[in-house]
Amino acid sequence: MTVPCCTPQTTSPTPTESLAARYRAVREASVQLAEGLSDADATVQSMPDASPVKWHLAHTTWFFETFLLQPHVDRYRSFDARYAFLFNSYYESAGPRHPRPQRGLLTRPTLADVLAYRAHVDAAMLERCLPADLTHEIGTLVMLGLNHEEQHQELMQTDLLHLFAQNPLRPASRPALAHERPAGPLEWLAFDGGRHRVGHHGEAFAFDCETPAHDILIYPFALASRVVTNGQWRAFIEDGGYRTASLWLSDGWQTVGAQGWAHPLYWESQDSVWRSMTLAGMQPLDDDAPVCHVSYFEADAFARWAGKRLPTEFEWEVAARTRADRLEQLYGPVWQWTASPYIAYPGFKPAAGAVGEYNGKFMCGQFVLRGGSRATPAGHARVTYRNFFYPHQRWQFCGLRLAEDR
Amino acid sequence: MTVPCCTPQTTSPTPTESLAARYRAVREASVQLAEGLSDADATVQSMPDASPVKWHLAHTTWFFETFLLQPHVDRYRSFDARYAFLFNSYYESAGPRHPRPQRGLLTRPTLADVLAYRAHVDAAMLERCLPADLTHEIGTLVMLGLNHEEQHQELMQTDLLHLFAQNPLRPASRPALAHERPAGPLEWLAFDGGRHRVGHHGEAFAFDCETPAHDILIYPFALASRVVTNGQWRAFIEDGGYRTASLWLSDGWQTVGAQGWAHPLYWESQDSVWRSMTLAGMQPLDDDAPVCHVSYFEADAFARWAGKRLPTEFEWEVAARTRADRLEQLYGPVWQWTASPYIAYPGFKPAAGAVGEYNGKFMCGQFVLRGGSRATPAGHARVTYRNFFYPHQRWQFCGLRLAEDR
Amino acid sequence: MTVPCCTPQTTSPTPTESLAARYRAVREASVQLAEGLSDADATVQSMPDASPVKWHLAHTTWFFETFLLQPHVDRYRSFDARYAFLFNSYYESAGPRHPRPQRGLLTRPTLADVLAYRAHVDAAMLERCLPADLTHEIGTLVMLGLNHEEQHQELMQTDLLHLFAQNPLRPASRPALAHERPAGPLEWLAFDGGRHRVGHHGEAFAFDCETPAHDILIYPFALASRVVTNGQWRAFIEDGGYRTASLWLSDGWQTVGAQGWAHPLYWESQDSVWRSMTLAGMQPLDDDAPVCHVSYFEADAFARWAGKRLPTEFEWEVAARTRADRLEQLYGPVWQWTASPYIAYPGFKPAAGAVGEYNGKFMCGQFVLRGGSRATPAGHARVTYRNFFYPHQRWQFCGLRLAEDR
Amino acid sequence: MTVPCCTPQTTSPTPTESLAARYRAVREASVQLAEGLSDADATVQSMPDASPVKWHLAHTTWFFETFLLQPHVDRYRSFDARYAFLFNSYYESAGPRHPRPQRGLLTRPTLADVLAYRAHVDAAMLERCLPADLTHEIGTLVMLGLNHEEQHQELMQTDLLHLFAQNPLRPASRPALAHERPAGPLEWLAFDGGRHRVGHHGEAFAFDCETPAHDILIYPFALASRVVTNGQWRAFIEDGGYRTASLWLSDGWQTVGAQGWAHPLYWESQDSVWRSMTLAGMQPLDDDAPVCHVSYFEADAFARWAGKRLPTEFEWEVAARTRADRLEQLYGPVWQWTASPYIAYPGFKPAAGAVGEYNGKFMCGQFVLRGGSRATPAGHARVTYRNFFYPHQRWQFCGLRLAEDR
Repeated sequence: MTVPCCTPQTTSPTPTESLAARYRAVREASVQLAEGLSDADATVQSMPDASPVKWHLAHTTWFFETFLLQPHVDRYRSFDARYAFLFNSYYESAGPRHPRPQRGLLTRPTLADVLAYRAHVDAAMLERCLPADLTHEIGTLVMLGLNHEEQHQELMQTDLLHLFAQNPLRPASRPALAHERPAGPLEWLAFDGGRHRVGHHGEAFAFDCETPAHDILIYPFALASRVVTNGQWRAFIEDGGYRTASLWLSDGWQTVGAQGWAHPLYWESQDSVWRSMTLAGMQPLDDDAPVCHVSYFEADAFARWAGKRLPTEFEWEVAARTRADRLEQLYGPVWQWTASPYIAYPGFKPAAGAVGEYNGKFMCGQFVLRGGSRATPAGHARVTYRNFFYPHQRWQFCGLRLAEDR
Repeated sequence: MTVPCCTPQTTSPTPTESLAARYRAVREASVQLAEGLSDADATVQSMPDASPVKWHLAHTTWFFETFLLQPHVDRYRSFDARYAFLFNSYYESAGPRHPRPQRGLLTRPTLADVLAYRAHVDAAMLERCLPADLTHEIGTLVMLGLNHEEQHQELMQTDLLHLFAQNPLRPASRPALAHERPAGPLEWLAFDGGRHRVGHHGEAFAFDCETPAHDILIYPFALASRVVTNGQWRAFIEDGGYRTASLWLSDGWQTVGAQGWAHPLYWESQDSVWRSMTLAGMQPLDDDAPVCHVSYFEADAFARWAGKRLPTEFEWEVAARTRADRLEQLYGPVWQWTASPYIAYPGFKPAAGAVGEYNGKFMCGQFVLRGGSRATPAGHARVTYRNFFYPHQRWQFCGLRLAEDR
Repeated sequence: MTVPCCTPQTTSPTPTESLAARYRAVREASVQLAEGLSDADATVQSMPDASPVKWHLAHTTWFFETFLLQPHVDRYRSFDARYAFLFNSYYESAGPRHPRPQRGLLTRPTLADVLAYRAHVDAAMLERCLPADLTHEIGTLVMLGLNHEEQHQELMQTDLLHLFAQNPLRPASRPALAHERPAGPLEWLAFDGGRHRVGHHGEAFAFDCETPAHDILIYPFALASRVVTNGQWRAFIEDGGYRTASLWLSDGWQTVGAQGWAHPLYWESQDSVWRSMTLAGMQPLDDDAPVCHVSYFEADAFARWAGKRLPTEFEWEVAARTRADRLEQLYGPVWQWTASPYIAYPGFKPAAGAVGEYNGKFMCGQFVLRGGSRATPAGHARVTYRNFFYPHQRWQFCGLRLAEDR
Repeated sequence: MTVPCCTPQTTSPTPTESLAARYRAVREASVQLAEGLSDADATVQSMPDASPVKWHLAHTTWFFETFLLQPHVDRYRSFDARYAFLFNSYYESAGPRHPRPQRGLLTRPTLADVLAYRAHVDAAMLERCLPADLTHEIGTLVMLGLNHEEQHQELMQTDLLHLFAQNPLRPASRPALAHERPAGPLEWLAFDGGRHRVGHHGEAFAFDCETPAHDILIYPFALASRVVTNGQWRAFIEDGGYRTASLWLSDGWQTVGAQGWAHPLYWESQDSVWRSMTLAGMQPLDDDAPVCHVSYFEADAFARWAGKRLPTEFEWEVAARTRADRLEQLYGPVWQWTASPYIAYPGFKPAAGAVGEYNGKFMCGQFVLRGGSRATPAGHARVTYRNFFYPHQRWQFCGLRLAEDR
């Protein structure tokens, strides 16, 4: 998701008390993700798709300053007027902004400056904004700001991993995870066709791209009970998957050639042993663990090689709504590519105001991922959640689950 | 449509007699399109997306030689064995091929050589292949070859126009058309929601991407009775449409900036008078004529500016099936962008054999256009026909028809 | 030489009679070089550095029309006013011009049109300009135009060869040459150091970059009696010359990597047999013939590998002036790279007027070649002649002669 | 100078005592240049031509470790074996190396790690290497390492300035300089032509490209007594210098267009007032101060506009040797572009061993600058010193001094 901000259609009724607590918790979680990082770690940008950790910390703060404090708090004094230019991501109506590919050139403000900026905004939010009798509009914006920040928490991890993976020293930013509990044996769960309701409805928070709820038709299909593993992916590699044109979409095959792809991002082979770069540094590849860091192009080619296909986002949602008990790894550890282009639901309406200025502007050329990943904050995702990336991107925690016609 | 070849699921029952007549007619039509062109006109490639006229003439011939004559005619002697390499477009299983962006470097074979190649293949087809008791398989392949050639007939015109538009002398290749009959006043035709059947079914010829026929749900909508005109587009320009970020998809806005778009392709303004490059050379712009040579990005932005949206391909098809009598300009003079990404229909199955090797390989990143254009051969298109191009492409005869929710 | 036009400092005293004859001969020679070419052969541009044959034929004509006929012939009627834009190469003061990389898009005017343009200008030149009592200024301009056209005669051949080399059919444009007489055994000719006069002086025609004549100091050196052969170059290849970083200039080594150079341009190896593309099509490589189509980077690396160096342009000139009898292959079949950057001679003065507008504007980043090639018109080159190209360019007929310190 | 390392032909006789003192002083000066910088300031790379300050600090240390400690100190234990890969600049014979454009991705090792690396190497150098009876070879290498480090001290400043100039906050790294003493009035000093000796000879340290000393011929010329000022440059701008094609070299004019150059690097104009980014942040432009941060292309165009030319490097050297008393600003505050391409002197011989592996490999496409700048360490430059950069580069402290023929 290039710019992971969407406005909520509706917001859950949140008592002021708990909203302040939620605010504190989310804001604190972002800072914790930066613990142990040097000023330089938090500053460098390893590619235009990624942003520095420091930028994420500042941009999420800018959101509260720009959309809550400045319009709604009387005589709010901004921390530094120049930050509006530096930390706007893509809101045209919020004024000009610093070019995305140059985010990594901002050695100033320092990480310490940005943490001070966060403290300044947090104090104002907690003292001047949240204690008040919250209007529905303000409550909605705060909820949006927090969900927005949770999305950036995931990006902080994917972007940091990408940066560390470029460093020949292969640094680690946290201890290796204990091996995840292996998933159960692969089963195929069958689903009837028919008319189903999908999308978000009701008072709870959701991004507007999840709405409106509407009916869709699906045809009989089956879905794998678990996601594809590293071991399965090795078989694909060993069978020449990356060298067989007929398995690939035309654009995918061009990308394979141009980028020299021969395995998922971060995999390395030495003396026939595969290892992978992770946030815990280089780690042996676990055949039973989910394959991660594959693009849509690769997921699609793998499915064709396996004689299967990717599910549509609605097949995924219908299955998750009706048989979630039998589906493993639904909300992690990897996002699951679907066959569905990211487009508007029937009747989709852009929200009003600055935060909703561009609700649909990313609905072109990207594909939907469903579920969640090991980097997604707990409680962030849900059955209607739509993540989205371009088909060649693979630095996110992305995997796949197979489907087939019945 | 990068490579406009798809295999038919089924073919219409064609008596041998009429298939030979059809073959003659289609093949002759291609040659007529090249009349009046110099050897150089037919050789130069003006951009990687376009191909030389000579290449189109040879490639469509290669199709019959490779998929009909070589496998099915005993002791067929190829015209020149090296042409297999030169004129394969993208069939990986048919062997290596000449790189697409270098098609314009082939000053040899000459146009005369290529016409001789066509005569050689036509003689063999008409004498050795078509008179025989046609098997169903061969009949299907011939029908496919003819429909394939008709697609290239349209491309010959779009590619030639692009070439001539690069020439400061602005050459014309044919007389100007008499002004087309203006369409009637714009009406909004309303359609109920509900379950509808779309896609191709039955014995008549269709490309496999039009199948299988299946049911879809639509919601109440209205469709404009006519396409958008040049006059409407001028109002969009004059209202700052090309300078207003909020109207555009994110990728579209980047393209506007990078390419400096300020009007449709081929429009030129001098002393406040608009003219447009056409196959008849520079012509005054007719405000009542359909706007042409706009990209998906532009069509989508225009619709947003107008407070409307593009129809989905299924809305278009349902409308065309049920109220075609009230819809003007359905099959021309311009293809109509839809809001639908070009993806597989539920249950889509790739056809067997070389011609079907890559049926779905273009189903990524492109959008569907419906209808037909002034360059589409008569009888080529139909209500289920799916044309497709990338959202930034605009050298085809592409326009738009508006829709809205009801 | 990107743009091979320089103004002469002085011109030889040419009687009107013989100047007209010279005019006819030079102009006719250009047309003969285009014989046997199709309209397409003469139109396509194979890379930005090269120009179409048709463009060369028109541009050399534009020179006479622009600098002789229009300013000096009363009521001269131009052939087509639009050609001034199409066929200006780089003269800023002569008005705007068609972009160089798009020269190959001009399928119109046709080759026949351009030949008619030539006839129109030749008639005017021969009837209206040359018979008159020639002023010194006009005679000088005519001589310049003819020398300019001779330079383009060489480019017509190098550019056509490059075009045909891109064609998998490897067309030939003329019969193969009989094998050239092999050069004698390699000798090293020693020269003392000292003060020498170099550069052009006197009334005979020369380009201004050859002036003024001036004194230089050289140090004792030896020069090879012949140029480097294909056989010597094969030894360089077989010794790993293209894979040994220490032999190359830094920029050269980058070019080797980026371009994948492993042999001279146009060489191809099949089953350990080397062949080379020539104007007579693919030909076996003659070990005794001069190596051709090597860049400065390659020539410099070869010399280092051989334990020698390239001569400076002044060493070459002093040797040619004093011991030309002992030096073989001085003026062909290949231009010889020197170690001298192409810069102004002390006291160099740009000539006045349009033709001299940019005399020195190419004096940056290029290296001097001395001698002449098999494509250089007879009588065109001389001992002071300075040809020049960028160090990575190799589509000209370029080779090398070795030198060493003594 | 892309890679500012050259081997000395000879070294000055340095008592061990003073060499150790010199070592301490030079090494300490580098660390002082990094004072006040954050870890991030020292890590980020603002363009491929520039390197991070941290990299400069480590690379100069790697030089001593690789060429002195490892080959010459018994059982020397390297600080971190992986640094050999990270901090090799371009020595092919010293093994593979980290790609230059990725230097800014190395957030680890941290600045503290690099300072520890420096301390480790300095201790070993001072305890194990320098106290010994220095052989001539080791003394030469140490002198080379120190001169090499001084060159990087200048680059640390130019690269840091470039980084800070990309930051919209325009940070300062040190206090503004008091205004430099204005130079005296411009005078033209005349020099006779004749035979002169140039280049380095003797025991004092010099880089090998300054040798051998040799005779050259010059022609009568005059040299400006001072460098060109900001005020003169403003006149050039106001006279349309950046918009007048006829003033520019062809490659320069292309660069002006492609880069949109309209003034020297770091100049900014607001409300008709010029300011310039400096190491002290944005500063008003002083009309009497030397113009700085101009490329060769700009210097050459300015000289043509002024009716003058750039001096050759030998004119500069002869003038400096004979009339240095009358020439102001010889060794600062700006390097002075000369008209001389950077090539080998007659008889130039690459030095033996690893440090001399590539002595001449940058002698292509660059131009010589003479003098020194405000960032050049005191005592570093001399009358034979040859600095060199590509003609489009301008992030160094480069200006110009005019010359003319007499």
